[in-house]
Amino acid sequence: MLERYGHGGDLWTAEEAFNLPKEQFLDYSSNMNPLGPPEVVKEILSASWRDIVKYPDPAVRELRRKLAQKYEIDPESILVGNGAAELIDLIIRVVNPSMTGLARPSFSEYEEAVHKTGGRLTNIPLLPEHQFELQWQDVEAALPIVDLFFLGHPNNPTGKLIPRSVLSNLLQSGRKLVLDEAFMDFVPQESEHSLLKLASTSQDLIVIRSMTKFYSIPGIRLGYMVAHPDLIQQLRQQQVQWSVNYLAQQMGVAVLGDEAFEQSTREWLGVEKPWLIEQMRHIGLEVVPSDVNFLLFSFSVSSGISIKQAQQVMGRQGILIRDASLFEGLNERYCRVAIRLREDNERLLQALSRMMNDLTRSGGTGHA
Amino acid sequence: MLERYGHGGDLWTAEEAFNLPKEQFLDYSSNMNPLGPPEVVKEILSASWRDIVKYPDPAVRELRRKLAQKYEIDPESILVGNGAAELIDLIIRVVNPSMTGLARPSFSEYEEAVHKTGGRLTNIPLLPEHQFELQWQDVEAALPIVDLFFLGHPNNPTGKLIPRSVLSNLLQSGRKLVLDEAFMDFVPQESEHSLLKLASTSQDLIVIRSMTKFYSIPGIRLGYMVAHPDLIQQLRQQQVQWSVNYLAQQMGVAVLGDEAFEQSTREWLGVEKPWLIEQMRHIGLEVVPSDVNFLLFSFSVSSGISIKQAQQVMGRQGILIRDASLFEGLNERYCRVAIRLREDNERLLQALSRMMNDLTRSGGTGHA
Repeated sequence: MLERYGHGGDLWTAEEAFNLPKEQFLDYSSNMNPLGPPEVVKEILSASWRDIVKYPDPAVRELRRKLAQKYEIDPESILVGNGAAELIDLIIRVVNPSMTGLARPSFSEYEEAVHKTGGRLTNIPLLPEHQFELQWQDVEAALPIVDLFFLGHPNNPTGKLIPRSVLSNLLQSGRKLVLDEAFMDFVPQESEHSLLKLASTSQDLIVIRSMTKFYSIPGIRLGYMVAHPDLIQQLRQQQVQWSVNYLAQQMGVAVLGDEAFEQSTREWLGVEKPWLIEQMRHIGLEVVPSDVNFLLFSFSVSSGISIKQAQQVMGRQGILIRDASLFEGLNERYCRVAIRLREDNERLLQALSRMMNDLTRSGGTGHA
Repeated sequence: MLERYGHGGDLWTAEEAFNLPKEQFLDYSSNMNPLGPPEVVKEILSASWRDIVKYPDPAVRELRRKLAQKYEIDPESILVGNGAAELIDLIIRVVNPSMTGLARPSFSEYEEAVHKTGGRLTNIPLLPEHQFELQWQDVEAALPIVDLFFLGHPNNPTGKLIPRSVLSNLLQSGRKLVLDEAFMDFVPQESEHSLLKLASTSQDLIVIRSMTKFYSIPGIRLGYMVAHPDLIQQLRQQQVQWSVNYLAQQMGVAVLGDEAFEQSTREWLGVEKPWLIEQMRHIGLEVVPSDVNFLLFSFSVSSGISIKQAQQVMGRQGILIRDASLFEGLNERYCRVAIRLREDNERLLQALSRMMNDLTRSGGTGHA
């Protein structure tokens, strides 16, 4: 299993498992923008290496100012974190809900954060028969016992936005609502879907954003959250001092202005997503429609292929795919892959196709 | 007050306060090695900018392996953190002592960490009449009510190691003992003083180390702790996922091998510390003997100078000094400065001397 530490993108474990150098893997198991990092990141690193002799700004003033300008919100409604992961932990620790409602399957860090504080969880199912879209009736059933909902918008690994009507009901439910918008930048017409601005003045809504997926800088750790300034102040007091490193702050400021990069990303994804979905369906994979830059799919029941086998076969060829059966609520047929550039996607498709042929045939032979 | 966020080295606040660009300040308020960062840090940054497209190793395997080799301890007894600050918080949160014993004056993050968890504190005084050395009788008086001692070794801002006899008694006291050895690398014959190795197998001793002071890379955040593997595992489970960014891990691995840098640092400090102390005494400052790379000193009572005035006057000249009266247990006469290179130290001495003349004279005039 490549997800020894609970996630994709772990090249250190891949290196140990498949005996290939880290650099040689084609990584479809983490969902980074293949156009990134923007060139400006390189400039920051070569220009500011001597500046890491300074402590980072403990209050992350410049980046908050820039985010506040971009979204036209109060800088005091923004808290920057050492990746979204720190903010997920911090929110659960400070708000300390006795019962948290999670949609399943979803990103495992929500659950981890709740476990760390000894809180309890209620599952809200996302089902294949609804194309994994969150249904209000399932949320409603959980309402009486839940004080906080923690939901991906769009959700990982399903790639689906929460339907507008469900969001609207949630906002009127009187419960705290945390939306993880880590992949929101990849959604066409993002500003029509994001609730970031609403969160900056709301008493009950918190929005988390990541800057590392869209700009492909997960190595440096950078996320932020938007909520009412009173809550932000409370969370800030519990946050680790100098939590956001200097280079992360510098990069955040630099990439935010890179409109050409944003534009190219939208153009690439607009073309590549429908193409890849079509090609994957063509070779017999069952692909869930996606609002973002990754795809959840399953091997057909008739193929008899399990993701564990598939991950091994693909890994030996230097291609890492995500075992989605590790997400609660998905079975052994499910896999998640990022969408990358055409040439890589062609290599993925060829390898998937060959692997499916081989495993189906050998499975057949094995039973004969 | 420059320490708006509780610490020195805040150039953003200095810029706002003195209306000078950040780059123009000579920073004596944070205790970085003036020889750093080592050149290898530059190489890491230019060579690995594209690698931040990868998640950091969640288990920090390479750096732990290298530290384990250097100190001949089990890698499982090491936890790396997003700066020592993260580890201070994590220890207090997980060990959760009901009463923590702190020596005063000391680094404010220990107290902050205890406040965050709602724990209680007992003060153990460090007094000028003992040259701020920790006295066993004062520790002993606190023993009946304390479950965990959190002590700087050497201590910040006093710059003093804990005497051997006191350490030995503490280790036999049956209480948990956390030693913050953030500045231990600057101590001559470090290995005779550090308890890092003992911590790796002990049930009661935890040692925290920082890699950012000695190598002058506070901007990137990097610290580690050594304790019994069982405790390390417990702490790891509560730590934020991917807490240590990729570049910090790479730099940590690279600088550890840089023996020439270590050697130059020892040579510089061996010459510069006694010289600067002598010069400061020569202009009438009362300097506490120091085991490390910074100096605690006071303005004489007769001068009537307070650190608040002094910080303003020096700041307007572009020199930042640390208001040590913000450390509990020190009065308005106390200041802390780093030891830097000769040319800078000469500029510091001139500015201090001029400021003392001006303030003493104007103070006199004001009263006349």
